[in-house]
Amino acid sequence: MLRILDENNVKTHCPIALVDWTNEEGARFPGAMMCSGVWSTKSSMTLEDCYRVTDPDGIDMQSALEKIDYLGPTPCDYRENGLECHFELHIEQGPKLETASKRVGIVTAVQGMKWFAVRVTGVEGHSGTAPMGTRSDALVTASRLIATVRDTAVATSLGVATVGVIKNDTQSQATIPSGVEFIIDVRCSTDEMVDKLCTAIFENFDVIIQNEDNQTSYEIVRTWGLPESQFDSRCIEVVRAAAVEALNLSSVPKPEDRIMDMKSGAGHDSAWTSRVVPTSMIFVPSRGGISHNPNEFTSPEDCTLGAQVLLGAVLRYDSLMANGSSFESQL
Amino acid sequence: MLRILDENNVKTHCPIALVDWTNEEGARFPGAMMCSGVWSTKSSMTLEDCYRVTDPDGIDMQSALEKIDYLGPTPCDYRENGLECHFELHIEQGPKLETASKRVGIVTAVQGMKWFAVRVTGVEGHSGTAPMGTRSDALVTASRLIATVRDTAVATSLGVATVGVIKNDTQSQATIPSGVEFIIDVRCSTDEMVDKLCTAIFENFDVIIQNEDNQTSYEIVRTWGLPESQFDSRCIEVVRAAAVEALNLSSVPKPEDRIMDMKSGAGHDSAWTSRVVPTSMIFVPSRGGISHNPNEFTSPEDCTLGAQVLLGAVLRYDSLMANGSSFESQL
Repeated sequence: MLRILDENNVKTHCPIALVDWTNEEGARFPGAMMCSGVWSTKSSMTLEDCYRVTDPDGIDMQSALEKIDYLGPTPCDYRENGLECHFELHIEQGPKLETASKRVGIVTAVQGMKWFAVRVTGVEGHSGTAPMGTRSDALVTASRLIATVRDTAVATSLGVATVGVIKNDTQSQATIPSGVEFIIDVRCSTDEMVDKLCTAIFENFDVIIQNEDNQTSYEIVRTWGLPESQFDSRCIEVVRAAAVEALNLSSVPKPEDRIMDMKSGAGHDSAWTSRVVPTSMIFVPSRGGISHNPNEFTSPEDCTLGAQVLLGAVLRYDSLMANGSSFESQL
Repeated sequence: MLRILDENNVKTHCPIALVDWTNEEGARFPGAMMCSGVWSTKSSMTLEDCYRVTDPDGIDMQSALEKIDYLGPTPCDYRENGLECHFELHIEQGPKLETASKRVGIVTAVQGMKWFAVRVTGVEGHSGTAPMGTRSDALVTASRLIATVRDTAVATSLGVATVGVIKNDTQSQATIPSGVEFIIDVRCSTDEMVDKLCTAIFENFDVIIQNEDNQTSYEIVRTWGLPESQFDSRCIEVVRAAAVEALNLSSVPKPEDRIMDMKSGAGHDSAWTSRVVPTSMIFVPSRGGISHNPNEFTSPEDCTLGAQVLLGAVLRYDSLMANGSSFESQL
């Protein structure tokens, strides 16, 4: 998109910046969308907190950034280093566009999410000598809780809930597990629904523990969260107009029928930027809805289409800024 | 015990050997009671199989033995390097002696056991974007199976069943798990009961998979087993007589009331030796029945008592061997 603007000598009213937000995924250093969260000042983590986060080898993030020469002087705070608006192009990472035979998603919001670490505590014992009735097996209890996370999400239809990480302290074939930790990821359209689903899950946990003949205990720590985000109505409308135009340019029949409004199931940097500057996102289809998997795939045609929509949205928004009059009359 | 014999210039009819069987626990190199199994020739693992087993760092057992100068010329085969009999003193590793206020366990048998590796296969996906109804979550299915392992053991009262090891291939907070492996340890008094309990567990697995809305599959591989062992009646009787004598020597009132016959829940080298030479074991109490745990404890008094029983049993058996007449008349 930037190359097209440059090659065509397009002069925009506002300067255009490409932002590569540090640590969006939270893979090496725990805490997703870290940089955009700090920049927005709305995250519970400060810049200093982020510097001190360590990877599995104990290396802190500040040292890692210094080592690759990425610890520059640019202030990570929207009040000192602001943007007029923020647009983000992404693959959907889910099946909705493909299932509905749509080509472009007009993203209106990002769902709220919370992560919890659950630790179940039992007592180590010998797998051959401890009678079943005397056992306190942390893995058995953890297993019942993990199955309940899914069952509660399915039963309530409030959103999605997943356990993606499990750790067993003892990991010995002949030892009854004494400590198991797992992480729950809960996501719903609204913060209220997130809280409702979490409450339902934890109420079911209590029922399981009360009925359990296994003498284990558990504790829950909330580790991370992202409140629901509503995108800016003017940003959404320039994306919608640009999507119709891009589909027209590609000679797709009935472009209005090939776009759809949707909420993002995944978290994105736009969830944080939307709290301090006008923001919205563009989605293109993911084949089979598959993501976080080596089979993740979006066709070159859809990637091109997405870049075209981004170009159109940015130019439209820039033009509205240049003219300074009401957005609605110019869309 | 050997020091007492030496200090008192006791001459026995048979030479007495102290055997430190290599790799009883199977902790660094998988496969428990490895050396006694090879020596008995009744294990499914040959000496060459054992040499090739590797530890988690990829070091094979033959190299590890060479490195510490333990790969000597002694043949590991009872037919070339035999024993007249085999006695083993051990802590109970369970609560039965303590619960019954007994001091010495006269071990008559070792229960049969089988280990199985279970792999559940699902499909990786994004925890925020994949609707609950489309998921194939291997950890959810594995959790239901693990809970069923315990529930089936409790419901059938056939023996004990434990999952001590679980591995999740993906281990990412935002990824639906696509592959989970766990190991089941099943132990019962008889091989027939082991097979009954395994069948019941796997039948319940099938019911879960059929009722599961989760589109996962699973496969089971049997990884290890130890058939039930019956100890030699003459060895058992010399241990019983030695236990009564040792308790008398310690001025314990009514010694006959402080011993009990029992089966071993844990596997021991004696399970393999009993297949080729007369064998039995002596148990002393484990505090709280705790074992495979840093709180494992047996009092110095009970350790002393156990050694005294071992001494008496060995001398009695040796005396019977020397006299060559019927055991029953001399006990």
